[in-house]
Amino acid sequence: MIVDLAECDALVWTADPSTFPAELPERVRWVQLPSAGIERWFELGILTPDRQWTSAAGAYGQTVAEHALALLLAGVRGLGLAARQQGWRRQELLAATHTLRGARVAIVGAGGIGRALVPMLAALGAEAIAVNRSGRAVDGASETVAVGDLDGVLPRTDHIVVAAPATPETRHLIGAVQLGALRPTSWVVNVARGELVDTDALVRALDAGTIGGAALDVTDPEPLPDGHPLWTHPAVLITPHSGNPVPLLRQAFAVRVADNITRWLAGQDLLGRVDVAAGY
Amino acid sequence: MIVDLAECDALVWTADPSTFPAELPERVRWVQLPSAGIERWFELGILTPDRQWTSAAGAYGQTVAEHALALLLAGVRGLGLAARQQGWRRQELLAATHTLRGARVAIVGAGGIGRALVPMLAALGAEAIAVNRSGRAVDGASETVAVGDLDGVLPRTDHIVVAAPATPETRHLIGAVQLGALRPTSWVVNVARGELVDTDALVRALDAGTIGGAALDVTDPEPLPDGHPLWTHPAVLITPHSGNPVPLLRQAFAVRVADNITRWLAGQDLLGRVDVAAGY
Repeated sequence: MIVDLAECDALVWTADPSTFPAELPERVRWVQLPSAGIERWFELGILTPDRQWTSAAGAYGQTVAEHALALLLAGVRGLGLAARQQGWRRQELLAATHTLRGARVAIVGAGGIGRALVPMLAALGAEAIAVNRSGRAVDGASETVAVGDLDGVLPRTDHIVVAAPATPETRHLIGAVQLGALRPTSWVVNVARGELVDTDALVRALDAGTIGGAALDVTDPEPLPDGHPLWTHPAVLITPHSGNPVPLLRQAFAVRVADNITRWLAGQDLLGRVDVAAGY
Repeated sequence: MIVDLAECDALVWTADPSTFPAELPERVRWVQLPSAGIERWFELGILTPDRQWTSAAGAYGQTVAEHALALLLAGVRGLGLAARQQGWRRQELLAATHTLRGARVAIVGAGGIGRALVPMLAALGAEAIAVNRSGRAVDGASETVAVGDLDGVLPRTDHIVVAAPATPETRHLIGAVQLGALRPTSWVVNVARGELVDTDALVRALDAGTIGGAALDVTDPEPLPDGHPLWTHPAVLITPHSGNPVPLLRQAFAVRVADNITRWLAGQDLLGRVDVAAGY
């Protein structure tokens, strides 16, 4: 059933801001936007304080968290190595097979992705050490530290998952010093932005065998050029920034819309509420 | 501190039955055995009804369940494909990347491995359909069916994890009919015994593209011979029966021993109690 927008109480917008109606009927009290970041919507002056707006903030974290877990498990279980073999090399694979049970995983960046990863790790018997800007405790993490204290937790860290935003401060957050604090069985997973890891330092650590391996959905440079040493390193697994395909984003958005409609009808707080006055 | 066995209330045995003491001091009221299967212990007449015996039944399930989850996630996330590439083929990988969120996974065989897998899937937002001999409800599964009703649930199954014991009845439990009921995005994971899956039917389904892929820790024949078509199929990921390495078994056994000692001291029921009269 298609109804005129003037008869609607709420609007779910699935396109970009460029085609958004210049004026909305007064009856529309709530608008669900499709993206997590909404800077463009502010810039274009669309977000006004006379109605409620919700972004998709936090809705897409679980998809990437699942990819991070898949990469980490693949590393710990020797699946990259296994995938490249065409013969039954049991002893080699047994030696490369470890477990997340009892492991401590530092999640660097405890936003939507990092927070979604915590319960996934818990289900496998692994502990999450959350690392965020403030050090404010993250639900389900065995401990939370501020990013400035990252080096202090690395000696008791088995694996690192990088899921922090790329900013000038987070560039090369995982460099030679941090990699040097890890163990020969430690995996480094990056699902955030390539620049957060110092690629040259990573290659040196891999070559020296001081870490177990790296599983990367993002690289620096990106795309990773043909012939780059990461492509052929036996302890590296690369997915080409494919952890968050559009159909999975749509599925995650659909779940969020269903959640918010249920909340709206029940008069509850909506997820991803935009504070128009504060500008975020 | 080493004390004489005659001064001990309990005994944790980590070796095989051949070196077990011919006679135990009466004071030893409980013996923890290291293996899940204890047929040999019965055959050798070691298990007597005058004290309590516990096997490691159920202690090793989580290790293999973690491997099953790693294989399933690797399949669903295209990691086998990614591991074999040495270039940035983003579109190809995006098309091969799916999610376990909202997926229904049939776990064929709901013993220690299958039951350990259920909460791991739940943490990813996937549903478990448990398939066991009796059809008796499995904790956490969205439904449980008897193995005779397997074909009935396959049309609503996204993926299959095979974790059942190998018996004459379970040979080729997953054959052409079962594979034919799946979807082009369905993954078949086997962490039990190779014979449970009809290898020829599997290769045909893979070649026809009627399933998404197969991730196998066990094969038939095993070891899988060099040159077998499964080795080179792009939608197949094989680990050479490496899902349960000895060090991980030891770690899992240590966790069980710690659990049982805590229970023993608290006067609670022990895990893995052997019913000597019943013979299991």
